[in-house]
Amino acid sequence: MDKNKQEPIVGAIEAGGTKFVCAVGSGPGEKLRERVQFPTGNDPDALMGKIVDWFENKQQQYGEFGAMGVASFGPVDLDKESPTYGYITSTPKPGWQNTDILGPLRKAFPGKAIGFDTDVNGAGFGEQRWGAAQGLEDFIYITVGTGIGGGGMARGRLLHGLVHPEMGHMGLPRVDGDAFEGNCPFHGRCWEGLCSGPAIERRAGKPAEDLSPDDPAWNVTIRYMAHALANLTCVLSPRKIIVGGSVRKAGQLGEDIFFEKMRSDFREIMADYIVSPALTDDGIQDFIVPPVLGDDAGICGAIAIAQSVWN
Amino acid sequence: MDKNKQEPIVGAIEAGGTKFVCAVGSGPGEKLRERVQFPTGNDPDALMGKIVDWFENKQQQYGEFGAMGVASFGPVDLDKESPTYGYITSTPKPGWQNTDILGPLRKAFPGKAIGFDTDVNGAGFGEQRWGAAQGLEDFIYITVGTGIGGGGMARGRLLHGLVHPEMGHMGLPRVDGDAFEGNCPFHGRCWEGLCSGPAIERRAGKPAEDLSPDDPAWNVTIRYMAHALANLTCVLSPRKIIVGGSVRKAGQLGEDIFFEKMRSDFREIMADYIVSPALTDDGIQDFIVPPVLGDDAGICGAIAIAQSVWN
Repeated sequence: MDKNKQEPIVGAIEAGGTKFVCAVGSGPGEKLRERVQFPTGNDPDALMGKIVDWFENKQQQYGEFGAMGVASFGPVDLDKESPTYGYITSTPKPGWQNTDILGPLRKAFPGKAIGFDTDVNGAGFGEQRWGAAQGLEDFIYITVGTGIGGGGMARGRLLHGLVHPEMGHMGLPRVDGDAFEGNCPFHGRCWEGLCSGPAIERRAGKPAEDLSPDDPAWNVTIRYMAHALANLTCVLSPRKIIVGGSVRKAGQLGEDIFFEKMRSDFREIMADYIVSPALTDDGIQDFIVPPVLGDDAGICGAIAIAQSVWN
Repeated sequence: MDKNKQEPIVGAIEAGGTKFVCAVGSGPGEKLRERVQFPTGNDPDALMGKIVDWFENKQQQYGEFGAMGVASFGPVDLDKESPTYGYITSTPKPGWQNTDILGPLRKAFPGKAIGFDTDVNGAGFGEQRWGAAQGLEDFIYITVGTGIGGGGMARGRLLHGLVHPEMGHMGLPRVDGDAFEGNCPFHGRCWEGLCSGPAIERRAGKPAEDLSPDDPAWNVTIRYMAHALANLTCVLSPRKIIVGGSVRKAGQLGEDIFFEKMRSDFREIMADYIVSPALTDDGIQDFIVPPVLGDDAGICGAIAIAQSVWN
């Protein structure tokens, strides 16, 4: 196997609701050779045109990519047999309903292998390749920001299924004394309706970054987070849960205290029912963790997706 | 491939908390050649001795089995690298803590391939091979009886992980007006603490089979079931959920009405957020279903487990 094969230069797109990040590279850090970002906007045709132009230009500079990878916001169609495979489907985002993401890339780069998956599966894949989940076949990656999404692997394969996981919309037990009715337009008090950035702001009357460390909204938010991670552990039995996204940085409270309290609440909720060294006071430190790749998890994930379809 | 290879006669054990079912066969119905059951009791050594004797006798009668399979109550250790692989581990069941199930079989049948998995993964595997989940790579099998457990497959592989799923212990939103505090000794109001047979009896003051069809306990129980199935759908995105176990037979209410109401509540809770033909009024009939193998799902699953390790 030649060196290019081991470290293939690929084209990668992290397609987010706010911005699309495009990159050329073979991994994180200095392997991420070049990147650019474009606002998502509400005109997919125009955006995809700009993206195609950028990659065509980069291929002239770096040589032809071995493959390309897309990690996209959703819902997306991951079913390769479906006529809308590679589409963003029923999103409420203006201009983006039923948008073909893969098509313009296939047309511009005929014959090239192009992988396509969800943003959270991508970020999880990146963490498995280079970050917090290395060597693990069963893990979950969640992002808690404007919304909440989750992906990951079961027995070494990215989670797909009927559509793909929508972990942010599961229901949770009410935390004692909490009267907030949640802000999910579909489900009210689902996980996303209780713990996303906008939910925290609605509950507290100000954005998370303006909350003092002793604001009671932190305790309630973290308690719900712990309930959600407990549910994920009961359903999927992951070996690790990686919590990414902006909320976990926890403003003035700080990421360390946020994680410490979330782990402690998680252990209290689980009540030692599932017996494993990973779930003890010591083990939990390495069971619920922030992403190692930080905010690069998504674009690195798109690189990992590309490399996985490299022929 | 010769015919024996296609339809291998195997030895199968469904290890339950009340009884162990042992069988010889190659599938459900008339392919299930012979079966016997033993009370689980509290003396695993004596029981495993009887089981070994029975299979030795059957091998004399049917010829040597190609493989054996065990689908066991848990928690069990599924990690092949672990020194306690094939054990029932931290169960509260008297006499059964840290009990080696696989060891006595390996000792009695040296060299034979013996598969080992959870009871619910087994039952799900059986349904995938011969029942409601044929051709599906992503599905969930749950059993609701004395306890609640769940298993199934993600992308064609049985769900394992850190330990294995313990779906019955996830937390659920409180149903409006419900004051019952649940009967799970670990978590109180987890799914099992709200919907298992003993939980229904505790809530209603009498066993489920004695409840009249208009007893409000049915509505509350079914609503919690629907919340749980919605959470499973958000986390795993299954193509089907098979609901087995005794509670789904629903006594005087009847299985058909139980499923009809559960599907309707599920659709209301999901609120059309996940868009798929499987989750429409029509599609849901085939998305939330009882097991096709009925009460034979478990032992057939043990046969499927055996066949999967057949060399």
